[in-house]
Amino acid sequence: MTSGGRAEGPVRRRGRPASAAKAAGEPAAPDRILVSARTEFAERGYEKASIRAIARGAGVDSALVHHYFGTKEQVFTAAVEGAFAPALGIPDRLFSGSPEEWGEQLTRFVFRIWERAVTREPMLAILRSAVSNDTAAAVFRRLIARNLLERLAGGLGRPDAELRVELAMAQLVGTAMLRYVIKVEPIASAPPEVLIPRLAPVVQRHLTG
Amino acid sequence: MTSGGRAEGPVRRRGRPASAAKAAGEPAAPDRILVSARTEFAERGYEKASIRAIARGAGVDSALVHHYFGTKEQVFTAAVEGAFAPALGIPDRLFSGSPEEWGEQLTRFVFRIWERAVTREPMLAILRSAVSNDTAAAVFRRLIARNLLERLAGGLGRPDAELRVELAMAQLVGTAMLRYVIKVEPIASAPPEVLIPRLAPVVQRHLTG
Repeated sequence: MTSGGRAEGPVRRRGRPASAAKAAGEPAAPDRILVSARTEFAERGYEKASIRAIARGAGVDSALVHHYFGTKEQVFTAAVEGAFAPALGIPDRLFSGSPEEWGEQLTRFVFRIWERAVTREPMLAILRSAVSNDTAAAVFRRLIARNLLERLAGGLGRPDAELRVELAMAQLVGTAMLRYVIKVEPIASAPPEVLIPRLAPVVQRHLTG
Repeated sequence: MTSGGRAEGPVRRRGRPASAAKAAGEPAAPDRILVSARTEFAERGYEKASIRAIARGAGVDSALVHHYFGTKEQVFTAAVEGAFAPALGIPDRLFSGSPEEWGEQLTRFVFRIWERAVTREPMLAILRSAVSNDTAAAVFRRLIARNLLERLAGGLGRPDAELRVELAMAQLVGTAMLRYVIKVEPIASAPPEVLIPRLAPVVQRHLTG
């Protein structure tokens, strides 16, 4: 999101004027707010996260956060959707082949997200917030339903497609929990190339078996 | 735990004296403290939970909580071990048959725990705390390693047994996340008898396939 039009909002930054920031190639205020929000939600969880701290991290006034994104729930939704953007952009291309190949594609895709710190941190933030707060869980639920479920289940074209997709996701979500959150050994340190061949056939079985 | 011997500690309750409580068949202080701790950790998570609130819920002084259980981390460990007790007591009997039957046994066992509110709430408390706090995650990690992994992996008797058990657990942990925590449909409302036949063969495949 470059948000050229939105940057005309009431920018009241404490530091350099907006024109200087733009000349230096600094991200526009809405982007800085989303980055700051993701950090705040990741570190403090949904309940403890504050708009004030998000604004401070972005170098803007709290009013500007509300101006661009609305309530705390709406800020969270925008931050989560931004974190999901790589995940949500790819499936269109990723799952265009035969459903018989989706098991390995989906498994590898999930590992690509979780193995890179820059995409793992937003996922951890979402997971932490969704587990501890009902509002955050509802946001996560809507995103899963609207994006992953509709796309994947639609492609399977079976009456029980949504349940199949969710059972496949359950295998991958649980693996992420034990590997990256609880960090129990040996699954926490096993190389992806050991885990993927064990997971992909199971994911495939849920989808089309 | 009936803790007859331990009840000789410095009982300083605000309410009725201990003798009256005993006559009424009320649980002893250590048991009341554990029940209160589980509620507190479930409702507020590990970080926000306070010894003071745990003591208040049990009708005892904070000093008594420390006397019986030590630090907050030790109170959490005791509360989690208590919540796991049904889970930890059963496997000895549950997994005594052929490993070829463990897939369905383990799957049904996990559903029994999560489908009953009285055992689901402590599990949710553990999950919430482990996801949001590293100390709680470490406690959970040790419990998994010492109990489930050693017992199940020992019974499988293969060099990769621990990884197999964890991949099987990942399927069940992820199912619990989507069904009971995120509550995404249709997996949240599907009857256990629809889910178990889809999960058990996958769990079995991880264990012995």
